Amino acid sequence: MTQALESLTHPQTQTRTPETAATFTGLRCKECGAEYEAKALHVCELCFGPLEVMYDYSTLSQVVTRKRIEAGPKSIWRYRPFLPVTSDTPIDVGTGMTPLLKANRLARRLGIKNLYIKNDAVNMPTLSFKDRVVSVALTRAQELGFTTVSCASTGNLANSTAAIAAHAGLDCCVFIPADLEAGKVLGTLIYSPTVMAVQGNYDQVNRLCSEVANTHGWGFVNINLRPYYSEGSKTLGFEVAEQLGWQLPDHIVAPLASGSLFGKIYKGFNEFVKVGLVEEKAVRFSGAQAEGCSPIAQAFEEGRDFVTPVKPNTIAKSIAIGNPADGVYALDIARKTNGNIEAVNDTEIVEGIKLLAETEGIFTETAGGTTIAVLKKLVEAGKIDPDETTVAYITGNGLKTQEAVQGVIGEPLTIDPKLDSFERALDRARTLERLDWQQTLV
Amino acid sequence: MTQALESLTHPQTQTRTPETAATFTGLRCKECGAEYEAKALHVCELCFGPLEVMYDYSTLSQVVTRKRIEAGPKSIWRYRPFLPVTSDTPIDVGTGMTPLLKANRLARRLGIKNLYIKNDAVNMPTLSFKDRVVSVALTRAQELGFTTVSCASTGNLANSTAAIAAHAGLDCCVFIPADLEAGKVLGTLIYSPTVMAVQGNYDQVNRLCSEVANTHGWGFVNINLRPYYSEGSKTLGFEVAEQLGWQLPDHIVAPLASGSLFGKIYKGFNEFVKVGLVEEKAVRFSGAQAEGCSPIAQAFEEGRDFVTPVKPNTIAKSIAIGNPADGVYALDIARKTNGNIEAVNDTEIVEGIKLLAETEGIFTETAGGTTIAVLKKLVEAGKIDPDETTVAYITGNGLKTQEAVQGVIGEPLTIDPKLDSFERALDRARTLERLDWQQTLV
Ligand SMILES: [Zn+2]
Ligand SMILES: [Zn+2]
Repeated sequence: MTQALESLTHPQTQTRTPETAATFTGLRCKECGAEYEAKALHVCELCFGPLEVMYDYSTLSQVVTRKRIEAGPKSIWRYRPFLPVTSDTPIDVGTGMTPLLKANRLARRLGIKNLYIKNDAVNMPTLSFKDRVVSVALTRAQELGFTTVSCASTGNLANSTAAIAAHAGLDCCVFIPADLEAGKVLGTLIYSPTVMAVQGNYDQVNRLCSEVANTHGWGFVNINLRPYYSEGSKTLGFEVAEQLGWQLPDHIVAPLASGSLFGKIYKGFNEFVKVGLVEEKAVRFSGAQAEGCSPIAQAFEEGRDFVTPVKPNTIAKSIAIGNPADGVYALDIARKTNGNIEAVNDTEIVEGIKLLAETEGIFTETAGGTTIAVLKKLVEAGKIDPDETTVAYITGNGLKTQEAVQGVIGEPLTIDPKLDSFERALDRARTLERLDWQQTLV
Repeated sequence: MTQALESLTHPQTQTRTPETAATFTGLRCKECGAEYEAKALHVCELCFGPLEVMYDYSTLSQVVTRKRIEAGPKSIWRYRPFLPVTSDTPIDVGTGMTPLLKANRLARRLGIKNLYIKNDAVNMPTLSFKDRVVSVALTRAQELGFTTVSCASTGNLANSTAAIAAHAGLDCCVFIPADLEAGKVLGTLIYSPTVMAVQGNYDQVNRLCSEVANTHGWGFVNINLRPYYSEGSKTLGFEVAEQLGWQLPDHIVAPLASGSLFGKIYKGFNEFVKVGLVEEKAVRFSGAQAEGCSPIAQAFEEGRDFVTPVKPNTIAKSIAIGNPADGVYALDIARKTNGNIEAVNDTEIVEGIKLLAETEGIFTETAGGTTIAVLKKLVEAGKIDPDETTVAYITGNGLKTQEAVQGVIGEPLTIDPKLDSFERALDRARTLERLDWQQTLV
């Protein structure tokens, strides 16, 4: 084990959620149900199915109450009994509890009434939902004795793993595709991990990492630690339910990369129902993909229950997973909840980014642009009821994918530091109708 | 007035802080004490001194309690009675309540014991402390009837004004120096305001804006709305006091640009003492400047009580104000609290950015690098007691000033998607000692 962990200073540091050691009991195969100890395992030895964390829900129901959660830290760790760690001092850098914003201006523009944005573009510390899964994975990595952590990443995960490993004092080596956006490479290197830029797409990076995981004793957050890691995404379900005043929404729209996020929001809602924190409700689950990498959307449209891998070619690199591990589960959830899975092209993605920025002041990356563009498409197709309480999940920050919008957002008006130069530019701006012009006399 | 405001969904939406209309009573000149109505005014008509908001502290003492604040929204608006707005629905996009992180790894590296980082690099929505002042200024702008808002900015303020104006549905025109970092220009344009890029430095931009404020009926957040705007920075004092368990730190280190932030943290601490929320304590105030723009540090060193303007030339553009409006007040506070004001050069600033990233997983912009480099310098000079509870204020995010670290953070190791290519790169990495190498067997 490494040195003692630093902990975040919360206003209510005295209030601790109760011991959680007993709430999770091991791992279980999602396919054949075989059970395993809670170690660094992710694949069933019998059927090669994915492993998932098991909980003792009757213990959980006794331990968790709305009041205890509300008195907990202002981070994902307020839901600690639902997360697969035993530590009393999980790595807490303030991750989670991001705003759920009532998006009235965007809703009006789209023609619906009850729209919320769950804004992980401002998640801590690295501005994407990956901080949730990494906080859980690295806490578990330390519990399991790992001192070097790693990941296969499309960018956001590399940022997050490198940053949180730095804070926790863990050695770190991350693997990324060599053609990543500059902001994501720099946003990883700054924390001084070892960075391997692999000349290939994400699926090739992922295969290489599986081999490395087998030959080196490293904790790969999204490979051998994946069962723990992926549980972190449940907090995106928990927080929305709590922030809506302890009730579930009618409809959610989320991006689909591996499909894991989608499934974990679903699991999060169901767990809250199971332990009695919210009332049961039919929630519709709709998924968003980029046309340049839409294997799940294609399977949905064609009515298939299997996903055919594709070669990604889209600006939405953070969700460009051609062979999605949890694609089949995502398909199943969308179908059984009466949701939809749609894809949009790169132009629509950029328009989605601009639309969200102009109406709500939120600057998201290409994945978020995909979600907003699909939301728009679903509304236009009558697939979202204007009265439904709809939550769109924004999963990352636009400052990391500046390339995507450069050239389509215009230029500043260059002026001299003189009033007449300003007035001339103002006339130009009026002509351009950049500003809905109003002089106000106060 | 524009359309109804959107509001953030907080878990405790039912809990509202009490009516605040009565807590602030008008404006008063900091120099001659002349009093004015709470309108869009910032300069005393008698002596040209700056105007400040006045509060009725006896009313305030009766209204505020720790419990009420703790039950309030998870944003700056939990301190609404201390802020100069009357609205029951202030613009709340989740601004404030950023983490106060116990920075044990950085503290060990520096050789001190009780170090905290107040991390506004993850402030919402635009990742700098400016979101605090803009949330207050635009709320007040709406109350005063403005429909077009504006600012003179070194970048962060432009990002924030454009984003929050977009969310609130206000027209927006921002003024920036033409040589700003690309990320700050793009991070403004994305929200579709009118952007005027002025060919001159910040002080010239500021002078032009004063002229425009006189000829157009616009609400300039940092000119005619400045008394309201600047009060938002007090929340950086309030939050630290609350997050330390309702007590003040021993020493704070903050960047100095105009000097306003420094003075408002000081005011925030004093107000909490005045109304009985925390016990009185001598807090030392130390300020950080970049050598390329250090008029306040120079005055401090030379024992002057006036500030001589300079022409800025530093990578720390967000704090490069050559003629700081509140420089004299900052000098006074540093001296009377037994603090210091130091400057560091651009190389030290970049090292400060890297040091914070490597030890704590926080990626800050040049202003934050300046603060960390000055913190280091103060520790090395024996000007910070190792046992003092010290809080360093990190005010902005590194993704906006990527140019500053490009070229000094190394490159990824490029490999083929094959195990042997990885192993060779790993050997190179070991040689480079990028990784303190440990194989872990689990
Ligand atoms: Zn199995
Ligand atoms: Zn006066």
